[in-house]
Amino acid sequence: LKPDPTEAVTAGDIRAASLQLKGQVRETPLLSHPWIDDFVGCTVVFKAEMLQLTGSFKYRGACNRLSRMTGEEKSRGVVAWSSGNHAQGVAAAAAQHGVMATIVMPADAPAIKIANTRKYGAEVVLYDRYNEVREEIAAGIVQRTGAIAVSPNDDPMVVAGYATVGLEMLAQAERLGQPLDALLAPCGGGGLVAGIGVFAAEHSPRTRVIAVEPADFDDTRRSMAAGERLRNDPSARSICDALVAPVPAALPFPLIQRTVAGVEVATDEEVRHAMKVAFERLKVVAEPGGAVGFAALLA
Amino acid sequence: LKPDPTEAVTAGDIRAASLQLKGQVRETPLLSHPWIDDFVGCTVVFKAEMLQLTGSFKYRGACNRLSRMTGEEKSRGVVAWSSGNHAQGVAAAAAQHGVMATIVMPADAPAIKIANTRKYGAEVVLYDRYNEVREEIAAGIVQRTGAIAVSPNDDPMVVAGYATVGLEMLAQAERLGQPLDALLAPCGGGGLVAGIGVFAAEHSPRTRVIAVEPADFDDTRRSMAAGERLRNDPSARSICDALVAPVPAALPFPLIQRTVAGVEVATDEEVRHAMKVAFERLKVVAEPGGAVGFAALLA
Repeated sequence: LKPDPTEAVTAGDIRAASLQLKGQVRETPLLSHPWIDDFVGCTVVFKAEMLQLTGSFKYRGACNRLSRMTGEEKSRGVVAWSSGNHAQGVAAAAAQHGVMATIVMPADAPAIKIANTRKYGAEVVLYDRYNEVREEIAAGIVQRTGAIAVSPNDDPMVVAGYATVGLEMLAQAERLGQPLDALLAPCGGGGLVAGIGVFAAEHSPRTRVIAVEPADFDDTRRSMAAGERLRNDPSARSICDALVAPVPAALPFPLIQRTVAGVEVATDEEVRHAMKVAFERLKVVAEPGGAVGFAALLA
Repeated sequence: LKPDPTEAVTAGDIRAASLQLKGQVRETPLLSHPWIDDFVGCTVVFKAEMLQLTGSFKYRGACNRLSRMTGEEKSRGVVAWSSGNHAQGVAAAAAQHGVMATIVMPADAPAIKIANTRKYGAEVVLYDRYNEVREEIAAGIVQRTGAIAVSPNDDPMVVAGYATVGLEMLAQAERLGQPLDALLAPCGGGGLVAGIGVFAAEHSPRTRVIAVEPADFDDTRRSMAAGERLRNDPSARSICDALVAPVPAALPFPLIQRTVAGVEVATDEEVRHAMKVAFERLKVVAEPGGAVGFAALLA
């Protein structure tokens, strides 16, 4: 678990992102409930990142990337592809930085996420999630317009921005006198858990970082076992719309291999139950993809 | 609006409560959403006090009261009456301080609030909200057992504890560079808004404190106009179970008369809409009584 300075994202990048984002993002609270502790059999704290601007950690990544663009780059505009959270994060960060944004979204993304993305001022291009390749559509826009692609997982500055949620959570837990023995992070393309893994490996080696995937999208689990990136069955479906990536993303995967201690999965039913418990006990609205770690823990 | 040192609760009591409660209660976050600002036409911040321990500001009042009991007082146990939030607050604070608690609750209180109160270890005595007088039932228990009554509104230490949510909110808004021009607080018996009014009158005189009541429980509005405490129609009903007090409580009323700038009301339908917006935009689960201020603002 020694830090590797040749890696795409280092703990230093994440510390720098944290400084860069100060004042741009919210410090979201840690929540807990005594009955959840009783039920699980240990102290459990929740990072309420749905309270972040745009509703997810994706805003941290987009803001970190946009903050570092030159004026010339900003004038070209940005392109992103996303089922919803990265879309909203990039759209809002672009609006914040005065940059034009075009977002490629699946036509069956949650209507509220499409509407939100448009409301932030972005142009939305819809595609068929199961028969078209979003990266190709985005590449076409880049070619036509000269805009800069902001990848959700294969951009070091984006991944470093995501990881600031882990930096913040580890620091908050330390301040409460409750250093984390384990940290469960949702895993779609893998950028979030990879970044958190890199940071924890250097700053909180006692913390086992666990990736959690939807049961039928366990590509990272299988890929870790195989030592290479494997795809999900294209017929797989899940309510965790934020996590239905077809394959582990290229940049995060070696970071996950080095720093993530294990991969767990949760079924849609387990996720629905976790969302209900979060609603009733923690009083927060967790989206399915955000509840996957809690679901695995409860199960 | 000059401070009156002869009053039941002073700004000094509230500052002392804030110090007393440090480490015992959560500092709950301020939330906001750009579309809510757009829709309302000004900057709006929300104090997410549903994220407080036990789910409401009532825990602050109970904790402040229990913290100041002697060992002898603690050994006698406490009695409280409440439709749910004060019940949970007192039950949890009692458990925290190793004190036995008996809570008198209406049989038609939300099942989750009754279950929660029992789960904190309190004994729950149910009564008929519309045909029995809870204060009489509680007085009987005090007489039989020697326990100490913790009133939800007529106890200065309880009201001072409640008001720390206002102190905290005003300080957070100042830190954001957004001092509050107005602060809307839910009003049932009136303890919360009275305490906030007293604090703001001294520490943030620019802030107009507004009480908000359910439409058919506008006893405080009518009482303010009449200059005396008037009752609600006993046949009135509202989904705001936390705010259906029959009459303004005695201790807070003169404080409200002196420090509260106005009273607004919200219908159940307006409250339902506000809860939905809070769910969708702010990602928090507001109970009806907690959403009444937002409901009045949106309406």
